[in-house]
Amino acid sequence: MCHPAREASFQHERAEEPSPSLHAGQAGSLIVVAVEIPEKALIAKIRRLAKSTTTAAVPTGMGDDCAVLRLQPQIGGSSKQQKQNDVLVTTDFSLEGVHFRQDWHSAETVGHRCLARGLSDIAAMGGEPVAAFLSLALPRGLPKGWVEGFAQGLLTLAKRYGVTLAGGDTAQSPDGILADIVVVGTVSKGKSVLRSGSRPGDGIYVSGELGGSAAAVAEMGKKPKRKPNPGDNTRHFLPEPRIELGRMLREKGLASAMIDTSDGLSTDLAHICEESGVGAEILAEAIPRASVGKPAREVSLELALHGGEDYELLFTAPRSKRVPSRIAGVPITMIGQITRPKTMFLIGKSGTKSELIAQGWEHFRK
Amino acid sequence: MCHPAREASFQHERAEEPSPSLHAGQAGSLIVVAVEIPEKALIAKIRRLAKSTTTAAVPTGMGDDCAVLRLQPQIGGSSKQQKQNDVLVTTDFSLEGVHFRQDWHSAETVGHRCLARGLSDIAAMGGEPVAAFLSLALPRGLPKGWVEGFAQGLLTLAKRYGVTLAGGDTAQSPDGILADIVVVGTVSKGKSVLRSGSRPGDGIYVSGELGGSAAAVAEMGKKPKRKPNPGDNTRHFLPEPRIELGRMLREKGLASAMIDTSDGLSTDLAHICEESGVGAEILAEAIPRASVGKPAREVSLELALHGGEDYELLFTAPRSKRVPSRIAGVPITMIGQITRPKTMFLIGKSGTKSELIAQGWEHFRK
Repeated sequence: MCHPAREASFQHERAEEPSPSLHAGQAGSLIVVAVEIPEKALIAKIRRLAKSTTTAAVPTGMGDDCAVLRLQPQIGGSSKQQKQNDVLVTTDFSLEGVHFRQDWHSAETVGHRCLARGLSDIAAMGGEPVAAFLSLALPRGLPKGWVEGFAQGLLTLAKRYGVTLAGGDTAQSPDGILADIVVVGTVSKGKSVLRSGSRPGDGIYVSGELGGSAAAVAEMGKKPKRKPNPGDNTRHFLPEPRIELGRMLREKGLASAMIDTSDGLSTDLAHICEESGVGAEILAEAIPRASVGKPAREVSLELALHGGEDYELLFTAPRSKRVPSRIAGVPITMIGQITRPKTMFLIGKSGTKSELIAQGWEHFRK
Repeated sequence: MCHPAREASFQHERAEEPSPSLHAGQAGSLIVVAVEIPEKALIAKIRRLAKSTTTAAVPTGMGDDCAVLRLQPQIGGSSKQQKQNDVLVTTDFSLEGVHFRQDWHSAETVGHRCLARGLSDIAAMGGEPVAAFLSLALPRGLPKGWVEGFAQGLLTLAKRYGVTLAGGDTAQSPDGILADIVVVGTVSKGKSVLRSGSRPGDGIYVSGELGGSAAAVAEMGKKPKRKPNPGDNTRHFLPEPRIELGRMLREKGLASAMIDTSDGLSTDLAHICEESGVGAEILAEAIPRASVGKPAREVSLELALHGGEDYELLFTAPRSKRVPSRIAGVPITMIGQITRPKTMFLIGKSGTKSELIAQGWEHFRK
């Protein structure tokens, strides 16, 4: 049924790709014996079908962190059109048992992380967030105070970035808490930093440190009964979207391509390579690894390469540009370069070269 | 915990309001004994909390079918600003077991209805739809071909209205199919038809016929084993959003307030009354009731008053305006008038007057 084509993402692709398998279904009286749909193939399919609906009002659709809408004045033209803004739109699920667990994540951190996912996509385009829309479906028997906590976490973050919670939808959920956040942002017309602008020779840069959020998930998996303290790993529980950094990179014209590390370095770099039609070489030693725990220890190379949800910015810049080692207060590290051959390689300490495979980020299951 | 205030909607309010009750929870190791949250109170709570995030860029936030965003040019002003458009954004869940059932609704009709919900909100503002964003979470064991069918239903409707499917998010669902559709539209600056513009003396009008969709749900409830034929009740299975009608009402300046009948006449009229600070008198005999079944029979007054998901337009117009009996090919019927006292009344055949209570629309449960 599915063509497992390696096409690029449906805006903000999850790289979970379970192997096809047979399942008995739960859909009432229907006869349900079907192969599971690999997500990449599903995204590719929808994207292919959706191409038939493309118009001039949507210059950048699927394949980036946000869609870009160009809304023209309705009556007549304007000589000042070049000063108009493009509208950015991004949408992200936060599903209980997939993106969070009630026994691990407080309502406040679920609300914060829900909005942070969307803000981070706006940051990755170099945009400014304007408004958010929350669709929230709640199951029966929710703990007292959960909604207040969730709203507080979300709205505290919204206020920090001047984002209005402008609407949404509510419903009763058949099972588990289901949230979908839409963030609308703005960027000067045609100035969005896309995933498709990397050229061979460009340097590859990442902000902050990687693997910290995944380390928290690994730790919780080892001690599933203990309710973690959000303060012990703020990158996982209270990630700060890199809005200011993204905006400065766009304003200074430094980044040729950009994405946020929501799915993990290997997967997010693969998105840039796919969209730009290039490859990459990454220096293992250069990757800035997060330090976690007490006493603090550096996370493994594995987690730094493949762990998701750090919400840092991964970008490329032409060699002619001087990229400062700190922008908007965030450390910037060069970790490799873009290559013409369309393969990703990891260069080890002793110069060993091995193919870097996008491994994606599986979140966790209840 | 909750204040059961009768505040207006969180953009697009479901009026399900189950009575508070005790539930044992399913949330792992948490102690969960909580009262259920009445949805209206939940919406009111979020809306109240969200007010603290309002900015000038969002002149109309919660309380209408869509939020209105006013995105100013970034650099300098423009003398042609009055020709700019406002951006409309609406978001709506389609959840298996709440908004549709796999054994009753084909994948194509689920896709069509999913987008129609969003388009209808744009119509209710008098706007033009531009782009849609689909968040889709799928469970394991989905019937073969379901995604193709869903996409086909959605994209066929999208093409008919020139709407680009521009992005979204995908995830694995812990249980059931979860879709959330975002529709972005546009309208001349400041010209959106809001819910808040009704004045005492205005006539109340509705497009098409009411109760048809609810009649289909009632019929399926009686014969739950039979897979219905979408052609037998297109208003339920393949509703046509009233985009052209909404646009013409806005262009001609006829409507003082407008909403779509997604939650049912009594509930949607209550939204207009709440937002406008007015009341209403409805003539029972004047309500255009749908005819369904073979041989065709008119639906009950009950279904016409309280049945949801007809996606017709309910609007008010000053008495000074002449409202044609047909606009954009759709019959328009006057059904009552707006009053100063903030109560809704139903006037019966013999002149009897009884209070009209918003009963909302419960969809159905699996």
